Amino acid sequence: CSASKLRDWAHHGAPMFADLTPREMKAVRTYLHDIPEMGLTDARSKTLKKNNILLMELHLPRKHEALRALDRGQAKPPRQARVIIQFGNQTKPNITEYIVGPLPSPKSHEVKTFKGDRPVLFESRPITAVEYDHISDILEKITTKAHKLLFETTGGFSFTNCTDRCLTFSDIAPRGLGPGERRTWIMLQKFVEGYFIHPVGLEVLVNHDSLDPEKWTVEKVWYNSRYFDSVEELVESYESGDVEKVKLPDHDDKDLYSTYIPRGHSNTPTNIHGPKLVEPQGPRYHIDHNFVEYAGWSFSYRVRSSAGFQVFDLRFNGERIAYEISLQEAIAIYAGDTPAAMQTKYIDAGWAMGSSTFELAPGIDCPEIATFIDLYHYFDTDKPIHHKNALCIFEMTTAMPLRRHFNSNFQGGYNFYGGLENTVLVMRTVSTVYNYDYIWDFLFYPNGVVEVKVSATGYIHATFFTPTGLLYGSRVYNYVLGNLHTHLIHYKVDLDIAGRGNSFETIDLKYVNFTNPWSPKDFIVQSKLDRTEHKTERSAAFQFGKRFPRYVHFYNPNEQNKWGHQKGYRIQFNSHASSVLPKHWKEENGITWSRYPLAVTRHKDSEATSSSIYTQNDPWEPVVSFEDYIRNNENIVNQDLVAWVTVGFLHVPHSEDIPNTATPGNSVGFFLRPFNFFDEDPSLASKSTVIVRPGQDGKPKVQRWTPDVINYCVTNKPFFYNGTYAGV
Amino acid sequence: CSASKLRDWAHHGAPMFADLTPREMKAVRTYLHDIPEMGLTDARSKTLKKNNILLMELHLPRKHEALRALDRGQAKPPRQARVIIQFGNQTKPNITEYIVGPLPSPKSHEVKTFKGDRPVLFESRPITAVEYDHISDILEKITTKAHKLLFETTGGFSFTNCTDRCLTFSDIAPRGLGPGERRTWIMLQKFVEGYFIHPVGLEVLVNHDSLDPEKWTVEKVWYNSRYFDSVEELVESYESGDVEKVKLPDHDDKDLYSTYIPRGHSNTPTNIHGPKLVEPQGPRYHIDHNFVEYAGWSFSYRVRSSAGFQVFDLRFNGERIAYEISLQEAIAIYAGDTPAAMQTKYIDAGWAMGSSTFELAPGIDCPEIATFIDLYHYFDTDKPIHHKNALCIFEMTTAMPLRRHFNSNFQGGYNFYGGLENTVLVMRTVSTVYNYDYIWDFLFYPNGVVEVKVSATGYIHATFFTPTGLLYGSRVYNYVLGNLHTHLIHYKVDLDIAGRGNSFETIDLKYVNFTNPWSPKDFIVQSKLDRTEHKTERSAAFQFGKRFPRYVHFYNPNEQNKWGHQKGYRIQFNSHASSVLPKHWKEENGITWSRYPLAVTRHKDSEATSSSIYTQNDPWEPVVSFEDYIRNNENIVNQDLVAWVTVGFLHVPHSEDIPNTATPGNSVGFFLRPFNFFDEDPSLASKSTVIVRPGQDGKPKVQRWTPDVINYCVTNKPFFYNGTYAGV
Ligand SMILES: [Ca+2]
Ligand SMILES: [Ca+2]
Ligand SMILES: [Ca+2]
Ligand SMILES: [Ca+2]
Ligand SMILES: [Cu+2]
Ligand SMILES: [Cu+2]
Repeated sequence: CSASKLRDWAHHGAPMFADLTPREMKAVRTYLHDIPEMGLTDARSKTLKKNNILLMELHLPRKHEALRALDRGQAKPPRQARVIIQFGNQTKPNITEYIVGPLPSPKSHEVKTFKGDRPVLFESRPITAVEYDHISDILEKITTKAHKLLFETTGGFSFTNCTDRCLTFSDIAPRGLGPGERRTWIMLQKFVEGYFIHPVGLEVLVNHDSLDPEKWTVEKVWYNSRYFDSVEELVESYESGDVEKVKLPDHDDKDLYSTYIPRGHSNTPTNIHGPKLVEPQGPRYHIDHNFVEYAGWSFSYRVRSSAGFQVFDLRFNGERIAYEISLQEAIAIYAGDTPAAMQTKYIDAGWAMGSSTFELAPGIDCPEIATFIDLYHYFDTDKPIHHKNALCIFEMTTAMPLRRHFNSNFQGGYNFYGGLENTVLVMRTVSTVYNYDYIWDFLFYPNGVVEVKVSATGYIHATFFTPTGLLYGSRVYNYVLGNLHTHLIHYKVDLDIAGRGNSFETIDLKYVNFTNPWSPKDFIVQSKLDRTEHKTERSAAFQFGKRFPRYVHFYNPNEQNKWGHQKGYRIQFNSHASSVLPKHWKEENGITWSRYPLAVTRHKDSEATSSSIYTQNDPWEPVVSFEDYIRNNENIVNQDLVAWVTVGFLHVPHSEDIPNTATPGNSVGFFLRPFNFFDEDPSLASKSTVIVRPGQDGKPKVQRWTPDVINYCVTNKPFFYNGTYAGV
Repeated sequence: CSASKLRDWAHHGAPMFADLTPREMKAVRTYLHDIPEMGLTDARSKTLKKNNILLMELHLPRKHEALRALDRGQAKPPRQARVIIQFGNQTKPNITEYIVGPLPSPKSHEVKTFKGDRPVLFESRPITAVEYDHISDILEKITTKAHKLLFETTGGFSFTNCTDRCLTFSDIAPRGLGPGERRTWIMLQKFVEGYFIHPVGLEVLVNHDSLDPEKWTVEKVWYNSRYFDSVEELVESYESGDVEKVKLPDHDDKDLYSTYIPRGHSNTPTNIHGPKLVEPQGPRYHIDHNFVEYAGWSFSYRVRSSAGFQVFDLRFNGERIAYEISLQEAIAIYAGDTPAAMQTKYIDAGWAMGSSTFELAPGIDCPEIATFIDLYHYFDTDKPIHHKNALCIFEMTTAMPLRRHFNSNFQGGYNFYGGLENTVLVMRTVSTVYNYDYIWDFLFYPNGVVEVKVSATGYIHATFFTPTGLLYGSRVYNYVLGNLHTHLIHYKVDLDIAGRGNSFETIDLKYVNFTNPWSPKDFIVQSKLDRTEHKTERSAAFQFGKRFPRYVHFYNPNEQNKWGHQKGYRIQFNSHASSVLPKHWKEENGITWSRYPLAVTRHKDSEATSSSIYTQNDPWEPVVSFEDYIRNNENIVNQDLVAWVTVGFLHVPHSEDIPNTATPGNSVGFFLRPFNFFDEDPSLASKSTVIVRPGQDGKPKVQRWTPDVINYCVTNKPFFYNGTYAGV
């Protein structure tokens, strides 16, 4: 099939993966609200006892249907929406998911079930804005009771009736100790810029299970390392002197601690703009809606409101490499001395990670020259929400050659110099999940390499300092502990190496020892390739703590490159991850994917994701459990394989995390690298190569295919290369 | 002591680390040549029986002397040169090293000895241009004898009397099987652009131990997987039909295989310039000779002719973090089926790695805006060699924030947005060690993080394809095998964390299990920090194949930050290295550093380097053995510590390594990251921060310290940020 036809089919199929448009969202809402039995009302009305839409997003077509469009140019299957409805206004409240279609004019809906028809526990739903309003209300009552304590402790801060000395709060998850619970530890903080790192030392456990907020209760209170059964008990102890009073240092408005305001000195100027990217001859990539082309690459993308960034139908020169690469989950598992700290196990898909893609600042979050793209989300809302400039795509230089060689003649001259500057297309969104900002990047290199990367920044999750706390982190401020935690990120990588039929092997090295063939009294010891084909899912599930193979190699047993090697790609990890909880320990059941840096399964449309937005509030008996996917231990030889990749790092906060975790050194991810997939490096197609050879006249002769002079604020000098190295 | 005084002293001391100037080199040469007993003659005269200078470079001052200048502004010790002289013109030829000084007018010289007064075996000296001339001569004789075989095998190529169908050769090291040997496997290759990947299938073992090239002999010959004792024997077998004739496919001059010439197609244009870096308001770093300042950083640098790049007196805001960070060695240990392949264990300091720093091309090797700096080397020469534009320094944007946070109000608006673009100062040289090009980078981030990185490109070392060869790599061309190998790079990292008295600990995590203090029927399981102080060198030598700790932490037990933590830095690895030979196995004795991803020793001036230029040609009984440094197992508590870091990766070549190994995914290195060294992130000093807050009028209000409009080909639009996310 011709390259141009393959390209056209890829282009034709891209809309199958495009997120819902505002028009589609509105149509789905109207369609569902018009069904009387649903009894749907506005999401933002103050009652909790109501039926309403919580989330809607594109429902992906089944893979074999999508492939008909992508590989044969056939008609695309109709677009559908996935809708989560919370039915709070009925005897037994429940969460039900529906598939609604066809779009843009829905005519039908059907219930979407989970594996094994597991019901979604109503208590496992995410917290909505309305529920937070009620939480704020009960905190008002609590803090009013403890007003004097808080006022004295903080030197004048209060939750209500405050102007510049206000308190705010952060809530911890999971919300309880087992399924069906909905009780949350809440920390009070000074409401200043960067309040996340201003805990004041009061934590309360609120039970907010009831749909009637009047019935909510305070179950525990923590203050100065002691637990109390009620606010009243605390206040009494405080007044009686039974509990020692904490007194924070006087609040200093000039203390810039948690802010971004510059302070301190640097040797060299920073009040001028640093180096910037320009495009002297315009962009070298194409974007048509959600279809992107760059160098030999083409792909579609989407940002699902539930869990974020996805790439589909990734091809190089029209040949498929992956059907899907997508973010599944991000977790941060903490430890500490306060109840909030020891309870914190953030599982961010439950915090609207996918729809927390806020505006990107040009020149900071993405270069000024980037293409900025708007996103629309429908989560906890009554209208589609417009996220302006929430995604960016740009080409950048890595300021390094992709390849270069100086071919010396070892006599002060050279045979030739050749080089190609390395550039890369970057596609980025950022999820601000409360305090943290995760920067999600897909990078496409011209030589067939893809890099998937997450960089962490934003505020650390910090708790009130206690001496015991030092077992769990660093003191980063007078009364603040930065708590140790491990970030783990899970990706689905549905590689389709030149087609669906793929196999998987690992490659290690093994010493061989034999008589030296040219000196028989001696021995040769050298390494040879030690390949292991993994034939079943269980044997291809690698656990943290065990040795990881040197190379993990996915190949198509039915396709060879020019030199007779099976076309393949390997995954190269850039990660410092480890497991975070003992196997099967309580919450660990919700994150069984975190057992494996890599697991390989047979593709199933019914195994679309490894997590869900319900895991955060019920990690104990989750509706989606990754372990289920490998339990049947299917054969994975010459099958449609999916690689599931966990990356992450241990973060022991330190003073330099103030005010924010900085990105240098805090990026992890993985590379997809061709391994005998092509016949030679496909970046050879780039006409940006420069070759210099010594001419007949002794002067260097430059062979190139781009203009010799760049100008455009870069340089007006023609490219020059001498090549000789002479005695002086 | 004031920051400005510290800065001045750092500046004052920088010349102590500057490489020799051409004038100094000439003075040293003249001084030594004027000593009659030395009997020195030109290095480039054709005889091997002569005494001559092989290499000269700066001899570093002793550390305690240098510190007097750096820390107290005292007088700098006199400059000295290290000179290697090969005495070939005497009964017992030897290699002797001298310290010559003071510069620039030397008056004395003394012998520099190695640990334990080990003599340098004369046979372990590097090969010089003159010796290569003689090797070429003997190859002329060999290939003349085998002319018909070569001509028929290659379809018309010959070593002599050729125009566009010439042969060339590559020589393998080490050169023999034990100390005192000097016999080298040599592969013949087509002399075309990229000859490294054109082996023609003839390999010869030449004994060139004698200083009289007439006495050199051929010891073995390999052709079509068979060994012969002489060229004559091979030719006879070839003529008699006893050995099967190899016939390479007809040479096709239009086959671009090993060249850089573009071919193939890409979706998007590449004949226009891609994104480029500009400096809208000029550079933000200072360079004064070898003294560099950027953000809070200052350091001195040098590129020693023996082994390459070094950074000295690295400080942030005047406070020392490292006294020295320097490249020690780069090795590549191969495996394969031909004798050349199985013999290849490249130990690149023996190949003039330090002086193979050739010209960098603007726009390819470094951005056009970089500052390019010349280097001078004195190796195997009679004059200082001028390497134009061999080092570059530039600031680049990483096209990513250093920190950013969008502080949502969870109601469609925000409290503030803050961000700081991440930029980094890069200092780079490239060593082209025959076929390979190693890109050596030091990266300095504004937040106190240093990254040390090597990226690999250039041609693979390839051998003639045989079916058995597939155990050792991939077929990358009709008759060419890309041989598996492991790259390992060794660095010396003399951290001086806020002074010389440092200690070392590792930090791991350990589960703790205790009764839940707020729900006594339940248990908490969480991680706590598990710190181990390593008190002796042996306990701080971590072996490959064993578990590596989560954090490796160097700290000053005598200095604390504002929050009471000992000031520290940690090393974070970005590496896929492993050991390459069994412990104590022959050549492994020459690379004992390669046993350890990290080893920590007590600083000694006499333990300046972990390798030497003699190791390549005598790895069996090397004069410098890293293992010696830890054998005495000294106490490392509150001492001047040196961290020795090994990074690298397994490289199984694949079709995409043609024509060259590409850099994406092929970078390894390590980060030095502050860990409670500062009181807060020192990049807060940067005035490039931008803060946006919603104004009273609802419009965003921008707080910034850099011009709002950049212009300069970047953008003429003022910075804009909206911040809201609204329903539509
Ligand atoms: Ca399965
Ligand atoms: Ca697949
Ligand atoms: Ca020692
Ligand atoms: Ca030290
Ligand atoms: Cu973190
Ligand atoms: Cu390599």
